[in-house]
Amino acid sequence: MSEITLTSDITVRLVQSVGGDHMVAAAAKVSTSGEEALLLASPEKAEEGRGLIRSLMRQRHGTPFEHASLTFFVQAPAFVWWEWVRHRIGQTVDCDELSFSLESGRYRELKPVFWIPRETRAMSIPEQHKPMRPKYEQADEWQREVVLESFKHAYEKSWLDYRRMIISRIAPEVARAVLGFGVYYSGWVTCNPRSLMAFLSLRTHEPTAKYVSYPQAEIEESARACEEVFKLGWPITHAAFNEFGRVAP
Amino acid sequence: MSEITLTSDITVRLVQSVGGDHMVAAAAKVSTSGEEALLLASPEKAEEGRGLIRSLMRQRHGTPFEHASLTFFVQAPAFVWWEWVRHRIGQTVDCDELSFSLESGRYRELKPVFWIPRETRAMSIPEQHKPMRPKYEQADEWQREVVLESFKHAYEKSWLDYRRMIISRIAPEVARAVLGFGVYYSGWVTCNPRSLMAFLSLRTHEPTAKYVSYPQAEIEESARACEEVFKLGWPITHAAFNEFGRVAP
Amino acid sequence: MSEITLTSDITVRLVQSVGGDHMVAAAAKVSTSGEEALLLASPEKAEEGRGLIRSLMRQRHGTPFEHASLTFFVQAPAFVWWEWVRHRIGQTVDCDELSFSLESGRYRELKPVFWIPRETRAMSIPEQHKPMRPKYEQADEWQREVVLESFKHAYEKSWLDYRRMIISRIAPEVARAVLGFGVYYSGWVTCNPRSLMAFLSLRTHEPTAKYVSYPQAEIEESARACEEVFKLGWPITHAAFNEFGRVAP
Amino acid sequence: MSEITLTSDITVRLVQSVGGDHMVAAAAKVSTSGEEALLLASPEKAEEGRGLIRSLMRQRHGTPFEHASLTFFVQAPAFVWWEWVRHRIGQTVDCDELSFSLESGRYRELKPVFWIPRETRAMSIPEQHKPMRPKYEQADEWQREVVLESFKHAYEKSWLDYRRMIISRIAPEVARAVLGFGVYYSGWVTCNPRSLMAFLSLRTHEPTAKYVSYPQAEIEESARACEEVFKLGWPITHAAFNEFGRVAP
Repeated sequence: MSEITLTSDITVRLVQSVGGDHMVAAAAKVSTSGEEALLLASPEKAEEGRGLIRSLMRQRHGTPFEHASLTFFVQAPAFVWWEWVRHRIGQTVDCDELSFSLESGRYRELKPVFWIPRETRAMSIPEQHKPMRPKYEQADEWQREVVLESFKHAYEKSWLDYRRMIISRIAPEVARAVLGFGVYYSGWVTCNPRSLMAFLSLRTHEPTAKYVSYPQAEIEESARACEEVFKLGWPITHAAFNEFGRVAP
Repeated sequence: MSEITLTSDITVRLVQSVGGDHMVAAAAKVSTSGEEALLLASPEKAEEGRGLIRSLMRQRHGTPFEHASLTFFVQAPAFVWWEWVRHRIGQTVDCDELSFSLESGRYRELKPVFWIPRETRAMSIPEQHKPMRPKYEQADEWQREVVLESFKHAYEKSWLDYRRMIISRIAPEVARAVLGFGVYYSGWVTCNPRSLMAFLSLRTHEPTAKYVSYPQAEIEESARACEEVFKLGWPITHAAFNEFGRVAP
Repeated sequence: MSEITLTSDITVRLVQSVGGDHMVAAAAKVSTSGEEALLLASPEKAEEGRGLIRSLMRQRHGTPFEHASLTFFVQAPAFVWWEWVRHRIGQTVDCDELSFSLESGRYRELKPVFWIPRETRAMSIPEQHKPMRPKYEQADEWQREVVLESFKHAYEKSWLDYRRMIISRIAPEVARAVLGFGVYYSGWVTCNPRSLMAFLSLRTHEPTAKYVSYPQAEIEESARACEEVFKLGWPITHAAFNEFGRVAP
Repeated sequence: MSEITLTSDITVRLVQSVGGDHMVAAAAKVSTSGEEALLLASPEKAEEGRGLIRSLMRQRHGTPFEHASLTFFVQAPAFVWWEWVRHRIGQTVDCDELSFSLESGRYRELKPVFWIPRETRAMSIPEQHKPMRPKYEQADEWQREVVLESFKHAYEKSWLDYRRMIISRIAPEVARAVLGFGVYYSGWVTCNPRSLMAFLSLRTHEPTAKYVSYPQAEIEESARACEEVFKLGWPITHAAFNEFGRVAP
């Protein structure tokens, strides 16, 4: 009977982008070739730039990776957005280079779409647990039931309380305080390849990285979806990013 | 019998700061006096710098206002932090110049402290309502009752659901999704006078400002508390900020 | 007999761009329409967004102007680059949002192209002179001759000294210290409309602006060239920028 | 008879600072201890925080390193400032977190202080030379003589040309174009430990670093002077920076 929707999906779609591997190489060539670098700013020259791109990554020459732009549409629970715009225990990307436009909980009524963990989401705390490097185990059936019931119950109750206030003409900016962090927001995120790599470096877990990170699973899921898009448009840059330890140049 | 605490208070306290009006003037003098500017970097010279500080503000010469630092301890509901780190419909301060270290909802169990609106909080939507320039009216008694009941009910239920998951050894990073945006977080914020003025410019409502802003009441409350601290330490700068329209230089 | 080239020209050309007025409006609509905002992200919808874009500018809602990118090729004397990347007496744009890739004076021999002021360049200091709001007068014939001779002489001598060191196998990064600030560099600059407007706000002189700026003529020339490109691609945004006082939103 | 001064010295002096190792640890504790973290914000607790600071550095949790500020007075040739504010072939620090107030060449006559390389400065290009990873050799006596003569000659001539224009009432902003990049500027730089480490990471050459950088000797000299100051005030943070590969957290 409930009007609320429960989902575990996080959506990431490319809205627009400009640039590519060829533009990275061309921007770097400016330093030694000045105006002639423009001749290289063409997609079919990308492969010629592979060696240069690898050098830039290895030596962390970052600015050539900034002459480009990617805009994503993202649909995710509020706590994922929260991690996007801040950190985990102080682990921040340079958020100035990530531009956000988000759905507003102040100006409009939110929609009753709420996040629940997937069945396979590791979320049980093991005996040996290091908070700053968390490794969770699969929940057992009983735990999963507790989670599912608690989520449904809490979301449904708070949604009714929210609605009651809205129909009593209470400002949405006040009423939203009762809604859980699991409510979905949609928004746009714009970044350049360099700021995206800084984000990926901190928001994905890769045991072979020079600095291993332990992000929350849902934020990693959104980061991985961005990485797939990035890999398609900048295959050489992405390969070099992996080769040299996944630290943003 | 509930274990939760309801409050409307937002706490802002200065942790540390360095700089002052004299440092603004001294930094500006560097451009015309080079090394000798250091002689002016002394608190008792502040008054001498008043004319210069007013010029800098009027002509928006901003960097002399960056040689300083303020660190605040802030205790506020999550939705206030949310507005701090993002925007209202895309109204953003340059968040790169605001540094945050926040309490974690991933690594620890949160405390059951939740926000409720003050009795005097204007929150009733009037007939004539412009979403992007909201002006709310005082809630009547019946509305206030709806709000108080809805808040208490929603917070209590979701807190029980949260606790049930925590004692079932579910990761706090998952369980927190059911808690409302009204839950309190504490954290540190560090900024310089220039980035603070950018924040004040957008997060306070001042009809005489050159660009009038319409922030949410609770975010304005936290901004005003920061402004009081700033005014004490930088009285000349603060007066010039007001005099020239409350746009960050 | 000299091998050096003297010129007054500053070159600005668009390398690539993405976005437009329609994307500004669509990004803003995200706050009230979430996913549906994507339907507006199409050039022919730009005109429909005019009212919204004007509101955003008037109320300084800046982030919707960040979902876009412009890359310029710029050829200019070193002192113009210097002003791009820093300020005039501390007047800085948020340089983090301007990305630069410049020709290197460390890794390659520079070319003997040097800047001289145009004949019409106001550069004579009048009796009444306010350093922070300079207004220069036309140079008389005698002054122009002094300037032309001094420039030619200084550039030629220092170029010979530079070349003498280069052929003696001295590192270019050392030898370049003798070259004048008038030597030309070429490079790429990438920005978004919001950071570009911040740059234009401070680097152009417009008596009707809410905050009047007094940039050096050559930096204004380069800024105006960028503004022309911007105006073509974002005509509605540009008009609103002018209408509301030329402060970046 | 010349009025010009030749020097190789680069001056770096601390103007003011706030924070320390204890504040790094306290800021990090906010995430798990909220308000109680304030109790740790005291210098004598610094040693207790060593383990935590090492963890933050190893896992690149950067924001706790931002609640602090250092302001330096720097006197250096223009080309060193140039590298501070930009990059070497696109290698940039996040310059937004470095605040600059510089002496102006627009508003005042510059002073005739010019840089010459120290006698021991490796500056001779060897047979085997990789431009992007330059290793210079000691100059022989003949080369040193060429350098000294060329520098003296170029500086003296161009200074006379500059002076001739100044006394003819030509705007300093125009006349300065003839002066060499070796002319000294003084200014203030403000940063926080995190942005300073980003700067040190790219502007010092350390064979044991995870990403080895090849900065120009003079920019490294100024960076090393800053590092000495930093090491005194943040000994534990500095040791951890070295231990974990000199990448900014």
